[in-house]
Amino acid sequence: MSASVHRLHTDRQPSLEPMLSLVAPDMNAVNDVILGRMRSDIPLIPELAGHLIAGGGKRMRPMLTLASARLIGYTGTRHHRLAAAVEFIHTATLLHDDVVDGSDLRRGRRTANIIWGNPASVLVGDFLFSRSFELMVEDGSLKVLKILSNASAVIAEGEVNQLTAARQVELPEDRYLDIIGAKTAALFAAACRIAAVVAERPDADEAALDAYGRNLGIAFQLVDDAIDYVSDAGTMGKDAGDDFREGKMTLPVILAHARGSADDRKFWKDAVEGRRVSDADFAHAITLVRQTRAVDDTLARARHYGQRAIDAIARFGAGQARDAMVEAVEFAVSRAY
Amino acid sequence: MSASVHRLHTDRQPSLEPMLSLVAPDMNAVNDVILGRMRSDIPLIPELAGHLIAGGGKRMRPMLTLASARLIGYTGTRHHRLAAAVEFIHTATLLHDDVVDGSDLRRGRRTANIIWGNPASVLVGDFLFSRSFELMVEDGSLKVLKILSNASAVIAEGEVNQLTAARQVELPEDRYLDIIGAKTAALFAAACRIAAVVAERPDADEAALDAYGRNLGIAFQLVDDAIDYVSDAGTMGKDAGDDFREGKMTLPVILAHARGSADDRKFWKDAVEGRRVSDADFAHAITLVRQTRAVDDTLARARHYGQRAIDAIARFGAGQARDAMVEAVEFAVSRAY
Repeated sequence: MSASVHRLHTDRQPSLEPMLSLVAPDMNAVNDVILGRMRSDIPLIPELAGHLIAGGGKRMRPMLTLASARLIGYTGTRHHRLAAAVEFIHTATLLHDDVVDGSDLRRGRRTANIIWGNPASVLVGDFLFSRSFELMVEDGSLKVLKILSNASAVIAEGEVNQLTAARQVELPEDRYLDIIGAKTAALFAAACRIAAVVAERPDADEAALDAYGRNLGIAFQLVDDAIDYVSDAGTMGKDAGDDFREGKMTLPVILAHARGSADDRKFWKDAVEGRRVSDADFAHAITLVRQTRAVDDTLARARHYGQRAIDAIARFGAGQARDAMVEAVEFAVSRAY
Repeated sequence: MSASVHRLHTDRQPSLEPMLSLVAPDMNAVNDVILGRMRSDIPLIPELAGHLIAGGGKRMRPMLTLASARLIGYTGTRHHRLAAAVEFIHTATLLHDDVVDGSDLRRGRRTANIIWGNPASVLVGDFLFSRSFELMVEDGSLKVLKILSNASAVIAEGEVNQLTAARQVELPEDRYLDIIGAKTAALFAAACRIAAVVAERPDADEAALDAYGRNLGIAFQLVDDAIDYVSDAGTMGKDAGDDFREGKMTLPVILAHARGSADDRKFWKDAVEGRRVSDADFAHAITLVRQTRAVDDTLARARHYGQRAIDAIARFGAGQARDAMVEAVEFAVSRAY
C-alpha cells in the first residue's frame, strides 16, 4: 500500500518488542497458571486447548493486563491468575468462533474443530470458560468478576449481532463498530481495567485503562479487517482474501460498497452473498477497495482510535511502561504496511 | 415393565406436585428474573433462549434450589436470582448439547439448532452462561460463585469425557457413573447446596443438601437412560429408542452387553457403532435388555441412589418441605413405570 504512515512518536518501525520485554517475567508466571489450569483427567481437554494456547498466539490480552499493571506500578502477583483467566475467555471464544464460522485455518494452522471436530471444540471452550471463572473466584475480587462476566456477555451478544448481520451488504458503519466494540474491544478493555482493580487505583485510572484497551481493540480489529484486502500481507498469519471469500462484512467492504458505482454495489452484494469467491473476484475486490480508498480510510479510522488509546494513558507518568503501551498501539495501526 | 415398584413412603403414585406447590410463589419470582435477564438488544437472543426456556421444561434445578431453601427455613429472596442463574447454566448446557449431539428434537419440539442453526445455539449458550455469572456476581457471594463455577467446569469435563467414551461398547460402569455424576448430578448438587450458603447454614447442612441433589441427579439420569428401553414410555417427552439409535452408551447397554452371549455382544457392538438403527434392531434390543434384566437393574441402581438422597435429608426436621423433597425422589425413580 502507498498510504503514508502517521508515526505517532518514534522514527524506527514500531514494534511489539518493548511491551513483550516489559512483561516477560510476569508472562512466564501467567504461562505457568495457564498450563497448570488446562490440566484435566480427560486427556482431550489439555490436548485440544494446548493446540490453540500453545499455537503461536501473541497472548495480546494477558499482555495488556500485565503492561497495565506495570504502568500503574502494581507490585503484587494477583494479576497473573487474572491474566490467565482473560486468556482462557479469549481461547474459549476462538474455539467457538471457529465452529460458528466453520473455519479450517487459524494463524496458519489447522483449527481445533477440523482436527477434533465441532463437538469437542464447543465443549472444551465451555470448560475453559468455566475455568476462567474459577480462577477469578480464587482471586476473590467481585469487581473483577463483574467486569469479566459483563465483558463475556457483551462478547457473546456481539457475536450473535454479527451472526444476524452476516451477508448483509447494507450493514451501517455504526452497527459494524458496535459489533467489533463488543466482540473484540470489550475484552481488550476489561483486560486493561482489571489491572487498576487489583492495584486498588481510583475509578479514573480504571476508566483510563478501559479506554486505552477499548480503543486499541477497535484499532486492532479495523487493521485486521484492512489486512484482508492488502494482497501482500503475511502479518499475523492471516491470509489475504479470507474474509472476502467468507462474505464477511467488514469496514473496507462497507466503504467500498457505499462509495462504489451501481455495478460495484452489485459486485459487493454478490460477493457478500457468496456468489463471488474466485481469485479473479478477489483481485477485482482489491481494485475496488483501492479505487474507493476503502482500505486507506479503514486504516485512517484505525489511527483515530489508536490516537484515542494513546491519549487515554497520557495521564499516567512517562516511562518505560507507557512508552511500550504507546508503541504497541503504533505497531497495531501500522501492521498493514 | 413388570418389575415391582419399591415405594419408599407413600401408597399413592408419587408425584412432583407437592414440590411444585411448595415452591410455586418463589418460582414466579424466579421466572421474572429469567425473563428479565434473557433480554437483549439483539432480538435473536431472547427469541432463541425463550424457545428452550419457555418450552415445557420443568425447571427441575431451580426448583431444587427453592425447595432446599424452604427445607432449611430460609426466608430471604437471594435464592430467586441464583435459581435463575442455575437455570441459565442448564439452558446453556442444553443448547450446546444439542449441537454436540446433532439432536433435532427435545421435549417433543424441534431443537434450537434445527430452527436457528448451530452457530446461533453455540453463541446464545455462551450468552446465557455469561449472564448466569453476572447474576451470581450481583448476588455477591464468592462461595456461591465458587460452587457454580466449579460445577460448570465439572459439567464441561463430563461432557468431554462422554464424547471420548462415545460408541465404546466396553465402557465400564464406573466410568459411566463418573460421566453422569459430572454432566447431570453436579448441577443438581450445586443447585441444592447454594440454598444452604445463602441461608448461612453450617457446612454439614451444605453437605447434606449437596448429597441430596447429587444422588437425586444420578437416580434421575439412570431412570432417563432406562426409559429409552421401555417401549411404552411417553414420560418427559422422550421417545423410546432415541439413545439406542444414536448408539449412546448408557447403563442398560453396559449391563445387557456384559451379561449377554457372544452373539448378543456382537449385536450391542454393532448397535453402539451405528450399524443397528432399524425398528427391528430396537425391538431386538428391548428383548435383550429384558432377558438380561438390564433395565430392571438400572432402575434398582436408581433406587439405591434415590434412597441415599432421601437419607441425606433425614437430618432436617420433618414437614411439608422434606416430604415434598422425598416424594420428588420417589417420583424420579418411579417414572419408568
